[in-house]
Amino acid sequence: MQGGILFVYDNKKMLEHQEPHSLPYPDLETYTVDMSHILALITDGPTKTYCHRRLNFLESKFSLHEMLNEMSEFKELKSNPHRDFYNVRKVDTHIHAAACMNQKHLLRFIKHTYQTEPDRTVAEKRGRKITLRQVFDGLHMDPYDLTVDSLDVHAGRQTFHRFDKFNSKYNPVGASELRDLYLKTENYLGGEYFARMVKEVARELEESKYQYSEPRLSIYGRSPEEWPNLAYWFIQHKVYSPNMRWIIQVPRIYDIFRSKKLLPNFGKMLENIFLPLFKATINPQDHRELHLFLKYVTGFDSVDDESKHSDHMFSDKSPNPDVWTSEQNPPYSYYLYYMYANIMVLNNLRRERGLSTFLFRPHCGEAGSITHLVSAFLTADNISHGLLLKKSPVLQYLYYLAQIPIAMSPLSNNSLFLEYSKNPLREFLHKGLHVSLSTDDPMQFHYTKETLMEEYAIAAQVWKLSTCDLCEIARNSVLQSGLSHQEKQKFLGQNYYKEGPEGNDIRKTNVAQIRMAFRYETLCNELSFLSDAMKSEEITALTN
Amino acid sequence: MQGGILFVYDNKKMLEHQEPHSLPYPDLETYTVDMSHILALITDGPTKTYCHRRLNFLESKFSLHEMLNEMSEFKELKSNPHRDFYNVRKVDTHIHAAACMNQKHLLRFIKHTYQTEPDRTVAEKRGRKITLRQVFDGLHMDPYDLTVDSLDVHAGRQTFHRFDKFNSKYNPVGASELRDLYLKTENYLGGEYFARMVKEVARELEESKYQYSEPRLSIYGRSPEEWPNLAYWFIQHKVYSPNMRWIIQVPRIYDIFRSKKLLPNFGKMLENIFLPLFKATINPQDHRELHLFLKYVTGFDSVDDESKHSDHMFSDKSPNPDVWTSEQNPPYSYYLYYMYANIMVLNNLRRERGLSTFLFRPHCGEAGSITHLVSAFLTADNISHGLLLKKSPVLQYLYYLAQIPIAMSPLSNNSLFLEYSKNPLREFLHKGLHVSLSTDDPMQFHYTKETLMEEYAIAAQVWKLSTCDLCEIARNSVLQSGLSHQEKQKFLGQNYYKEGPEGNDIRKTNVAQIRMAFRYETLCNELSFLSDAMKSEEITALTN
Repeated sequence: MQGGILFVYDNKKMLEHQEPHSLPYPDLETYTVDMSHILALITDGPTKTYCHRRLNFLESKFSLHEMLNEMSEFKELKSNPHRDFYNVRKVDTHIHAAACMNQKHLLRFIKHTYQTEPDRTVAEKRGRKITLRQVFDGLHMDPYDLTVDSLDVHAGRQTFHRFDKFNSKYNPVGASELRDLYLKTENYLGGEYFARMVKEVARELEESKYQYSEPRLSIYGRSPEEWPNLAYWFIQHKVYSPNMRWIIQVPRIYDIFRSKKLLPNFGKMLENIFLPLFKATINPQDHRELHLFLKYVTGFDSVDDESKHSDHMFSDKSPNPDVWTSEQNPPYSYYLYYMYANIMVLNNLRRERGLSTFLFRPHCGEAGSITHLVSAFLTADNISHGLLLKKSPVLQYLYYLAQIPIAMSPLSNNSLFLEYSKNPLREFLHKGLHVSLSTDDPMQFHYTKETLMEEYAIAAQVWKLSTCDLCEIARNSVLQSGLSHQEKQKFLGQNYYKEGPEGNDIRKTNVAQIRMAFRYETLCNELSFLSDAMKSEEITALTN
Repeated sequence: MQGGILFVYDNKKMLEHQEPHSLPYPDLETYTVDMSHILALITDGPTKTYCHRRLNFLESKFSLHEMLNEMSEFKELKSNPHRDFYNVRKVDTHIHAAACMNQKHLLRFIKHTYQTEPDRTVAEKRGRKITLRQVFDGLHMDPYDLTVDSLDVHAGRQTFHRFDKFNSKYNPVGASELRDLYLKTENYLGGEYFARMVKEVARELEESKYQYSEPRLSIYGRSPEEWPNLAYWFIQHKVYSPNMRWIIQVPRIYDIFRSKKLLPNFGKMLENIFLPLFKATINPQDHRELHLFLKYVTGFDSVDDESKHSDHMFSDKSPNPDVWTSEQNPPYSYYLYYMYANIMVLNNLRRERGLSTFLFRPHCGEAGSITHLVSAFLTADNISHGLLLKKSPVLQYLYYLAQIPIAMSPLSNNSLFLEYSKNPLREFLHKGLHVSLSTDDPMQFHYTKETLMEEYAIAAQVWKLSTCDLCEIARNSVLQSGLSHQEKQKFLGQNYYKEGPEGNDIRKTNVAQIRMAFRYETLCNELSFLSDAMKSEEITALTN
């Protein structure tokens, strides 16, 4: 590793004399220059006015389209055989594995384990073995009496704008013992309970047939052992499901590990996260489990409370990760650049060897500074949340032009950052941004067993979305997911990757061709409008 | 029958010389005098101001209660063993049997019948027998291709303020043949398909264990045969379920029958509705099936589009039902009085004989004139909708003081009359009105399989209701339902009928005692405030 980026050498022994293997990645300078360029752009007055007006125009245009073509769209869908909103494919594009079951499911599972195996040893504390019964005795609780109220994992009015309180909701009955026992992959039981619950959720998805999900599992970067352990958990408990694709979330909590002296510098954290992957890529036979697990991992997420402020301004003068030894946490943009750069190198290496590659899909724009959205614009394949695009017309317009996918979770936002009725999802959808619906944390937010359907139902009711709207969102969710090319062909149509109506197979997506044509024409118009303006500017510059 | 009211005589032969059996009922004069008294009251300026201010006061008082006691309430619930929102009893207090399955369920059922018995004779037209296959051939449809879109029973943006369009949504694929075949109790198959679907819904309720429902079945009053036919359908197909109680809905469509010359006058319609019940009550052995069916019928509903305007002003000078021969439909208040008076007489007769009695639970205040709420205030045990109470502070205050239960259906309103965010449910709940949540027509409005839970979930999310709020609504729903005294004791506690915290068993209802005490004290305060004012007025009157 050099300057926070991993390099691959052909030969171990003569490391000093060699050039590293050529695996291109964007260098720090390019990144910081681009950053500052866009930062200047989003505060430039005329640009703001221009983008604001174009966005207003997009919204009015959609209203007009709706008034004129709503009935034709519906007619198209009615005459579309066999396919309706219930049997189009939907992917839950943003969900945390540790909260992928709803509260009632977790409650039932806890009660079930207590009924069937109260005397099983489930933990060890200072050499003393502890049974399940003793765990509950220690908490002065009888699981029979346990309710979703006493479990207390549901977000309520108390969590609004309190990410700290929200995080502690991950502890059932406020007890971290139960979180360790039921919601972690590493514990005395080797994460068995957690695996069983995740598999129950997977079975429900498989039965529903048309729903997929992309749960996040954590890698913290505390130690290089995390990867083999996670892979072992996955393989041993057979957590694989055809309806799930896995994403690795990396919490931005270097400061906590550093202050506990678990890490010497930020570079070490990056090394713990990425070195095992390089090793498994180069020598799959020595890392069989990890190699196998990586087949089902489709991307990386970067997570934490975005509203935490950072004093540090990232620039090319910022210390390199290997000399970032302070207890201060690096800023969001710093995390994003180094994750992105390493993923790029890794992807290039894996592509060379015919292995799967990874997408970068960070949480972004849920709260905090607007600059996060600039970093993600430069690095991310797609983002989760994107609420704050509401506040920057320039960025919103850029995300529209580049069609950067956004996985939105209005029910989650409703409990944490933004009231449901104020959520910009409907507005983004109208303008043509590439949005999907996702649940984020069913354990904390949802009431029914069909959590993704609950998410769609509430959006449909509150915003009076049409069937075509819902199916467009569902189509977006498949497109922006980590499902394979073959699966996307199966779910969306042979030519799904083509733009416009040509890429849409209504028999599979139930999205009206009129809608697809409208979206395509509108986007082409905006782009040609811009390129025309560029040309005429060039001409003006030449003639002057 | 005399003047639209049924009388019972002890002896058939000497009818002229006898006094009818004494079965008290409110006479027309009392009703019209009371009507005009309240009509004067609700337009009286000072009364309006007074009620408006008291209602504001009630709302602020609740906000204060919430700020001070929210955490204590939640603490109470957390320490309440075994009971949570999921396992408190909930009754769907307002649901139409013909739309009690969701759209996906209906679709599956139609496909299933076609797969299993395409060659079954399901109808007869001009002597020719028609098979299921022929029905679909006639509609140029292959059920395999049928989707919820082509089924087209879901309310959308097109139904807002269009009750006419909404009513036609009851016809799957817009075809009344399918409605007759699948959603009616009287057809060639003797309503078998409809019975099977209702029973499937019932099985789901029984499995969920904690949910009950009160579906409405129609009696039109076109002919006296409707009652025995309906009872036969019920008994023959064993539609009984422990989780269902039945309500009879009478559509206010005399004008349609009259214009088709199916009825000579309005009195005949009343006779068709009520006479069979009197007969079955007096001679149960001659009407065994009806007698048995009536055990599971707990009330009457009056239904139709309330926004239809009526020219007639009901007064004691209005023509009696037996001379109401015009093609004009009688007004809402007229319908309500005559249904109520007959139900009263019938109840008194049944009570004498130790038989079950019926509640009167009309649709009221969904749309149309505010005077409907006055009629219902004088006659109804509880009402469905009550939206328009929002517009009359005096009536709203009266409904509060009398604690008249209101079954609200915000998702239904959202598709028909009032946007979700403007629905007054939250405000009514805060002020202390006796509200419950109900689905109305899952076929038209809901997306998930758990329709009542969907209704609760959306209310909880949009209005950020607390667990205590939700459990209070659930408790209200049991109280206002037609469940028996014994069942209510089992579901709410031994003393459920007592007022205040005494009547609440938190172990069964999961409603905090602090909440119950607050409601009780607040209501007592309002009532004593009023009676004090009355007294001081009397004193003033005496001393002057």
